Amino acid sequence: MRHNRKIIAVALVWALAFITINAQARDPLPSWNDTAAKKAITAFVDRVTQASSPDFVPVTERIATFDNDGTLWAEQPMYFQLLFALDRVKAMAPQHPEWKTKAPFAWLLKGDVKTALAGGEKSIGEIVMTTHAGMTTDEFAQIVKDWMATAKHPKTGRHYNEMIYRPMVELLSYLRSNGFKTFIVSGGGIEFMRPWVEQAYGIPPEQVIGSSIKTKFEMRDGKPVLVRLPQIDFIDDKEGKPVGINSHIGRRPIAGFGNSDGDLQMLQWTTAGSGPRFALIVHHDDADREWAYDRKSSIGKLNKALDEATAKGWTVVSMKDDWKRVFAFEK
Amino acid sequence: MRHNRKIIAVALVWALAFITINAQARDPLPSWNDTAAKKAITAFVDRVTQASSPDFVPVTERIATFDNDGTLWAEQPMYFQLLFALDRVKAMAPQHPEWKTKAPFAWLLKGDVKTALAGGEKSIGEIVMTTHAGMTTDEFAQIVKDWMATAKHPKTGRHYNEMIYRPMVELLSYLRSNGFKTFIVSGGGIEFMRPWVEQAYGIPPEQVIGSSIKTKFEMRDGKPVLVRLPQIDFIDDKEGKPVGINSHIGRRPIAGFGNSDGDLQMLQWTTAGSGPRFALIVHHDDADREWAYDRKSSIGKLNKALDEATAKGWTVVSMKDDWKRVFAFEK
Repeated sequence: MRHNRKIIAVALVWALAFITINAQARDPLPSWNDTAAKKAITAFVDRVTQASSPDFVPVTERIATFDNDGTLWAEQPMYFQLLFALDRVKAMAPQHPEWKTKAPFAWLLKGDVKTALAGGEKSIGEIVMTTHAGMTTDEFAQIVKDWMATAKHPKTGRHYNEMIYRPMVELLSYLRSNGFKTFIVSGGGIEFMRPWVEQAYGIPPEQVIGSSIKTKFEMRDGKPVLVRLPQIDFIDDKEGKPVGINSHIGRRPIAGFGNSDGDLQMLQWTTAGSGPRFALIVHHDDADREWAYDRKSSIGKLNKALDEATAKGWTVVSMKDDWKRVFAFEK
Repeated sequence: MRHNRKIIAVALVWALAFITINAQARDPLPSWNDTAAKKAITAFVDRVTQASSPDFVPVTERIATFDNDGTLWAEQPMYFQLLFALDRVKAMAPQHPEWKTKAPFAWLLKGDVKTALAGGEKSIGEIVMTTHAGMTTDEFAQIVKDWMATAKHPKTGRHYNEMIYRPMVELLSYLRSNGFKTFIVSGGGIEFMRPWVEQAYGIPPEQVIGSSIKTKFEMRDGKPVLVRLPQIDFIDDKEGKPVGINSHIGRRPIAGFGNSDGDLQMLQWTTAGSGPRFALIVHHDDADREWAYDRKSSIGKLNKALDEATAKGWTVVSMKDDWKRVFAFEK
């Protein structure tokens, strides 16, 4: 057997050498311009992955967390999950004749989204619970899949899972090919993301962290189901993000990626660990190819986190200057 | 480059062929007797992993969940986490002179565990919260590590992380080498397990699911910390196990492993999915090498789940008959 082992070793070294040479020849981030942002990313990855580096990080510790809305996919003119909820209200309306005279549903059915949402958190909470609870987890996953396959973005006319940022998909893939485990840590619903993010980003359901409602185990006709209840379980935003990371991952990421003040605590938590750390903020400054908004936006507000990024030397990505293209569907 | 690719392919096929031959020559479960239980395990794994099998399951779907107390490590004379809490009470007592006259602490400090715990859930809750909350997550992890390195089991005199079942460690490793992702789904504390299970079982923190208390993000001297609060967040037992699995994994396991009625719902949830499914129960029937208990035990009670295992043909492992050895430290 000793002889066989030697043959295996030689063959593996040989194969790996060729694979390495091939990999180096290709640019892993072709949608990124050769600007400082791209260089900061590749410099960090080299620093933690090269065996000779004093800052080498073992594979098990290479945890990277990504916000979703505004970081991996677009979030304008409003969070896509809210657009999903509004579509669900319309789809469910025939079973709810009482909605014709009941706010906020009556406003939505008349097409007046602005008035419907003017009630703030209470109205939004009512719309979300009505559309997200009351069914089993399997049923909800199917509803999300069906919506994703049919609904289209009001501005681009594209399916929502096409509204993902090509440079970020490349970045996820580049990190994974360097031994990173990539996680989503989003204020969005965990069960709203899981049915489609594996195909979109290559991130499996067990690496998705998000906001959640409670579920309950029940037997229905002798079959166990999990029923979604109209009660908040966890809000994975702001101070909640480090809590969610600790609950689901149980160790501190070495790299964090966000775009708004909702990601500030995640980036603080990430960068406060010992050893090499990386924080990146996607700055929406491209009104032509995407949207331009930051300090004063009601969606994806980027104010405190932009100041802290400047103060601490985090990488701020200009969508306009640092990305060759935003969406895969662009010419 | 086309020529290089061919060389890589040939070298890889060659290496893999030898690795496969070597692997087949070794028994992956040497601590298991060649009884029906072992055959059921290997038959299931062959059935879902062989490409030619009509029941082939892709790697991403190969999720296996394991209970911890009584399934991966021992749980007698009481749950080890409770023994940890009792040790902590003693260690913390000098800072709490009021405990000298306050139940349940006074009883514990006098060595009367039975009376201390006679108050039931309320007393246990008070002991657990006092010893598990009030510090940061990093501090608590260090406390657990220190205890694991020093405390010894009252009967065997071994460190608690030596009280793990060798056959189950082999089983975990065997499943992983067949593309499975192995998770712990335990009623025990998630933060009590994470500091040591990676070394003991090869299961990383992000694949540990357990009961939890709430945590809170805070800035202390400009550094972010997570503080452990004395409030229950989630109980990962019985009906809670499928809820925890759904929350953390987001897909249904195809194989589940437990030892008590606390695992029944997890095994029901696991086996109710479509396609090939596997459920296994470790039966504590070995008073010589471990302990013997089942239907009437206050710890690790196995009653309903034993009936259901019989009715549904789940694999029931006799520690006495199916395992060559229980602990690695046995001669």
